[in-house]
Amino acid sequence: MRWDDIDRQICSVARTLSVVGERWTLLILRDAFFGSRRFDQFQRNLGITRHRLSERLGKLVEQGVLVKVPYNDRPIRYEYRLSRKGLALYPVLMSLTRWGDEWMDAGAGAPLEYVHLACGKTTTPLLACSECGEALRPEEVKVHVGPALKDLAAEMENEGERNPEIQALLARSLLD
Amino acid sequence: MRWDDIDRQICSVARTLSVVGERWTLLILRDAFFGSRRFDQFQRNLGITRHRLSERLGKLVEQGVLVKVPYNDRPIRYEYRLSRKGLALYPVLMSLTRWGDEWMDAGAGAPLEYVHLACGKTTTPLLACSECGEALRPEEVKVHVGPALKDLAAEMENEGERNPEIQALLARSLLD
Repeated sequence: MRWDDIDRQICSVARTLSVVGERWTLLILRDAFFGSRRFDQFQRNLGITRHRLSERLGKLVEQGVLVKVPYNDRPIRYEYRLSRKGLALYPVLMSLTRWGDEWMDAGAGAPLEYVHLACGKTTTPLLACSECGEALRPEEVKVHVGPALKDLAAEMENEGERNPEIQALLARSLLD
Repeated sequence: MRWDDIDRQICSVARTLSVVGERWTLLILRDAFFGSRRFDQFQRNLGITRHRLSERLGKLVEQGVLVKVPYNDRPIRYEYRLSRKGLALYPVLMSLTRWGDEWMDAGAGAPLEYVHLACGKTTTPLLACSECGEALRPEEVKVHVGPALKDLAAEMENEGERNPEIQALLARSLLD
């Protein structure tokens, strides 16, 4: 498989990375969550070339993660705002942050702290079960093939096709 | 800033991406969470070149995310297991999965489902506050500069230095 083909994978991680998996893209989004909206802000904070920044922002707009909105008429100027699809990446950014805070702080402690305004406390965000609210640990989560993938697998079997990725996913869902 | 220098950034996202931000690395880790341990398993599932896979696995071992463990004596053969540091990346992988499930499923539904063994229910993992347990929304989280960064900023000010990254972080922490 070539990297440029990962959007065709069935795996949700691969599909997500086809949008945010390029170098700099997640740092651009981090900046957007911190409030950056304008090209020059991103450029100053990240120090990447204008060409690369422009390419990355363009792709995020194309994918509906950022929305390009005019903020000035003459000359026309645009800023980039997180869409609903973009805001939904917050858990991704926060999970990357938390891991860096815990494992890459060189013993100095987290550079930034996060206060949850709803409860007023300093929070260390965690991944929780939507049903019971407990923190999720990988060894307590079992993977099943969903209906969409089952349908697809059945359809392909009828047509005598074999998709190695689906076979691998089916095999995985039998793991404990 | 060059990409190769992002491990020197103070930002936890940048530091995390210095370990997992290369193409393929997060897909290798996804496979490790699904149970892959051996070079040939990773290679078959990902279909990337042996050279690239070897380079990525080597870096993950060097960073302590994977541990290289012998499973055969003659000839000596190694497998790659997630360390505690590697297992701690579970929220990153699951957040990427959830976003792909929700926003990149092309209307077909999530390919895989996740059952939380502790409560027995199909779960849609979410980012929650460690203190009150509620789901975290970006607009309800306020950023503060932590003690480590305050110390560093004070130290640099004493020495008459200005670090643009720290200035940007200090400015951000004033955002609402």
